[in-house]
Amino acid sequence: MEKFTHEALANASVRQLQTLCEQIREEIFRTVSVRGGHLASNLGVVELTVALHRVFTFPEDKIIFDVGHQCYPHKLLSDRADRFSTLRSRGGISGFPKRAESEYDSYDTGHAGTAISAALGIAKARDLKKEDFDVIALIGDGSFNNGLIYEALNSLRVLNTRILIILNDNGMSISPTVGSTHDVLEELKAGNAPLADVRLFERYGLEYMGVFAGNDFESLLPALEQAKEKLKTSSVLLHVTTKKGQGHPFCEQAPDLTHGVSPGKKGKEYSNVLGETLTTLAEADKRIVAVTAAMTDALGLRPFFEKFPERAFDVGICEEHASVLSAALAAEGMKPYYAIYSTFLQRAFDEIIHDVCGQNLPVTFCIDRAGVSGADGETHQGVFDLSYLSLIPNLTIAIPGNLSEFRAMLEMSASFPAPLAIRYPREGEEGAFSPIEIGKFDILHSNMSDIIIYAAGERCINLAERIYQRARLEEIPLTVVNARFLKPLDEELLTSRPERNVITIEDNALIGGLGDAITRCLKNSGKNIFCFGYRDVFIPHGDARGLFSEFGPNDDEIFACVRKCHARG
Amino acid sequence: MEKFTHEALANASVRQLQTLCEQIREEIFRTVSVRGGHLASNLGVVELTVALHRVFTFPEDKIIFDVGHQCYPHKLLSDRADRFSTLRSRGGISGFPKRAESEYDSYDTGHAGTAISAALGIAKARDLKKEDFDVIALIGDGSFNNGLIYEALNSLRVLNTRILIILNDNGMSISPTVGSTHDVLEELKAGNAPLADVRLFERYGLEYMGVFAGNDFESLLPALEQAKEKLKTSSVLLHVTTKKGQGHPFCEQAPDLTHGVSPGKKGKEYSNVLGETLTTLAEADKRIVAVTAAMTDALGLRPFFEKFPERAFDVGICEEHASVLSAALAAEGMKPYYAIYSTFLQRAFDEIIHDVCGQNLPVTFCIDRAGVSGADGETHQGVFDLSYLSLIPNLTIAIPGNLSEFRAMLEMSASFPAPLAIRYPREGEEGAFSPIEIGKFDILHSNMSDIIIYAAGERCINLAERIYQRARLEEIPLTVVNARFLKPLDEELLTSRPERNVITIEDNALIGGLGDAITRCLKNSGKNIFCFGYRDVFIPHGDARGLFSEFGPNDDEIFACVRKCHARG
Repeated sequence: MEKFTHEALANASVRQLQTLCEQIREEIFRTVSVRGGHLASNLGVVELTVALHRVFTFPEDKIIFDVGHQCYPHKLLSDRADRFSTLRSRGGISGFPKRAESEYDSYDTGHAGTAISAALGIAKARDLKKEDFDVIALIGDGSFNNGLIYEALNSLRVLNTRILIILNDNGMSISPTVGSTHDVLEELKAGNAPLADVRLFERYGLEYMGVFAGNDFESLLPALEQAKEKLKTSSVLLHVTTKKGQGHPFCEQAPDLTHGVSPGKKGKEYSNVLGETLTTLAEADKRIVAVTAAMTDALGLRPFFEKFPERAFDVGICEEHASVLSAALAAEGMKPYYAIYSTFLQRAFDEIIHDVCGQNLPVTFCIDRAGVSGADGETHQGVFDLSYLSLIPNLTIAIPGNLSEFRAMLEMSASFPAPLAIRYPREGEEGAFSPIEIGKFDILHSNMSDIIIYAAGERCINLAERIYQRARLEEIPLTVVNARFLKPLDEELLTSRPERNVITIEDNALIGGLGDAITRCLKNSGKNIFCFGYRDVFIPHGDARGLFSEFGPNDDEIFACVRKCHARG
Repeated sequence: MEKFTHEALANASVRQLQTLCEQIREEIFRTVSVRGGHLASNLGVVELTVALHRVFTFPEDKIIFDVGHQCYPHKLLSDRADRFSTLRSRGGISGFPKRAESEYDSYDTGHAGTAISAALGIAKARDLKKEDFDVIALIGDGSFNNGLIYEALNSLRVLNTRILIILNDNGMSISPTVGSTHDVLEELKAGNAPLADVRLFERYGLEYMGVFAGNDFESLLPALEQAKEKLKTSSVLLHVTTKKGQGHPFCEQAPDLTHGVSPGKKGKEYSNVLGETLTTLAEADKRIVAVTAAMTDALGLRPFFEKFPERAFDVGICEEHASVLSAALAAEGMKPYYAIYSTFLQRAFDEIIHDVCGQNLPVTFCIDRAGVSGADGETHQGVFDLSYLSLIPNLTIAIPGNLSEFRAMLEMSASFPAPLAIRYPREGEEGAFSPIEIGKFDILHSNMSDIIIYAAGERCINLAERIYQRARLEEIPLTVVNARFLKPLDEELLTSRPERNVITIEDNALIGGLGDAITRCLKNSGKNIFCFGYRDVFIPHGDARGLFSEFGPNDDEIFACVRKCHARG
């Protein structure tokens, strides 16, 4: 790709800018084909980003990308074009904005709805330091459903500063955008309701400018120039429409399926088991309802939504609201299943405590992408959930060891009368399992051994199996247990086992997880306890398998521990 | 107080209703004078609640009180008048709605902004069950700043059900309400901007009715009747104005100071030390800014806000936004202090991880009301923070042992370059302390002993001191340590101490707190470890001191443990 300085961009013709956009699209497409990543969202903002780099001066001016999955063109246009092919690989360029990566990245994002708050903080600091630069928040219409946006807008005038909000309206979250804000935007685009709805934004202290064609330089460039001018005296909301997937026929047609792209073949997914099983259960039990925050497909809920549209609720990127809604549905006798990624459930932490568990209501949290999720990096790893859930009273926490066991846990959950969390990684295999009993572990290999391994979740059970096989070769007998409930903990089994050496393996942060719970239970037993899980750091992007070994439980370390325990006798 | 059936209320004259209101106010005032509680917020909604009980039929119809600190008149009018004098005492009537207490309480609240989501869930369940009753969410204008409200409003039409939202507009959060939504409400009240702003609500699928005088039956009764009628075909937002503290001259004049009332004398407060110290530090350091979510006075920030208004930000009841704003201010070189109650910080859990610690930014969280906070009950106890914070990478967690040590920690924090949490209870005393070193414990009593006590926080250090004195009488030597940093943990001290018996005492849930951290560190040391903290249950309302002993670390149990360790030799 050609390199463009800010000056070159400023002097380029529209035709030259369009050629640059073609090159950027090619580069993104080539890289994502190899590395995976966010395709449609990035293809949609190519013209917009080129135009921003022409009109504004980075890194002096600051841009915050809400969610951040639309920052590839920015990375290509700033200082990372030559490293872009390393995208999402360990040590390579991140798929999200990272302050640590470049001075062109002003603020790290990954979860939805933070950009306006962040822009306000950066602008306010600028004012207090009496500096002079522009601050831009680029936000998709999907994020405009998120409550944080309104908290930020509400304080815009109180904070008395100036920011430019660019509303990148493509009609999509990962799923199509839903809700009343979306309807307002649709009418603005249709030109039907300008006065009252424009006032909606003006109320917040924003001068509204729209609607502009965000994939067309003829529309975009003068709009940005005008917004930059207005920004000298007021905060501005610039409403542009873009086409998610623009410039690539298949992406344009299926922006939901090409939002994120994985290279190589996919294995079987837990999400499919969720969708199928829940749909079957819901046929027999009318109380069952499903709730999602804008991720119907990724969570496997499509079959349920199609079969039971009146009992399926996509509330937009509103993780907290989804949690309270689930609690209230349960309070009135329904049986809600709230499916969500581990990392996004952090947003609903207070509502899990305050609304669901505080009232001891039978909401089932189906927590997908638990453990390292890989190439999306720090903001998407699901490594904290066992820790932040285990501290909550009234909550039962289940960790299936394979797809079949997950199915059985879901079947069990239908009659479970209290809050339940089931956490699982993306991919898995069918396998054997023994009948589920709440709070009971499952012994997989029992031997006359002095070493017992407690492993939770498919990745860790597979690891324990590998250790078991390696140990057999050296004639070291091992007992291996599927620690499939973190809470209630199987204290009866834990305290009655004779093995003097205890090894725990989990796909979660070491602090506050399974290892800590087992250590608490066995602390005065005289047993030696060795815990393996993620170290106390934010885990960067990379291959999930590699990250698991590098930052989490590692085969060789665990096997060395086994040998040492055995040698000690 | 006279008892009124629904029929009697329906047939009463306005004069009779007014007399009833006087009786309710008397009863509330009398009880709160003895028991403490929320005064001004309850006095403001007496007429509104009486009118609701006349027009609607509880418990068949459901009402959800947002935050819930305005439910006393409802409790007096439903089935709890004869027990109302037990308000907020252990085993007595809760100061918040509790499903477990009465069928008239449809949904438990305590934190702001949940009521519309909850009403939607209850209404949707009603529709699915093909039942027929009305669902009402009663919300103050302060809560209307909270993001959850907008997440719920956004999905109102998607969920395709009907609820009545009553906006109880008294212009106050605990502090006066701030922000753009507030300004809209003010203009609606002034009658200046009806069309566009009414449309703001209609956009969400709400029929707007307002503005009605909420302390005047002549205005209120026909409005509620009309709202009930409209509710048959549409969701309704009924905008009423009330006077916080209505009917009591001092409360009307000082609704912020009489929002919550404590009986008896108050001790010295950590919040005062925060306000004074931060103001002093800010004189020398221009980078220092203060952030609060609508609780300036309760957190002690008034002096700072008065002295540095341009560096002090009250963003309304927006705990998440306040957290992101702080992170962004820090990203641009400022030094933000975000003061908040422990229980409300749960709302910002994801932002602490994703925005503050993920970027390793020097935001200082000043976490007030840590440990049991007492009479407000389950939703207000600050017993989880050590657990949910300790799992977060990059975060330092400090726990001062007295007011003087808190002051020193704040002074230390000014030059601390990374995320820091300082957690403390409401009240405390000045006292001795040794110089603060990050991650280092402080030995308070060192003896040739076989028992060492690690205590964190003023309540627990005081408890340890009591144990120390009792042990002296029995000639049992004890070592006592102020475990003033949970993270980083003082592993050097922990692993070098010779005592074979370790006792931990903390003002936090046992799961995931100090005891677990120390147990993790010492797990293969051969030491006996005994941890004391809160059991794994939601802690109800009552006297804070009593709850501490009943649900948390208990003098007698700990002393029995000391004796047992000593006897074992």
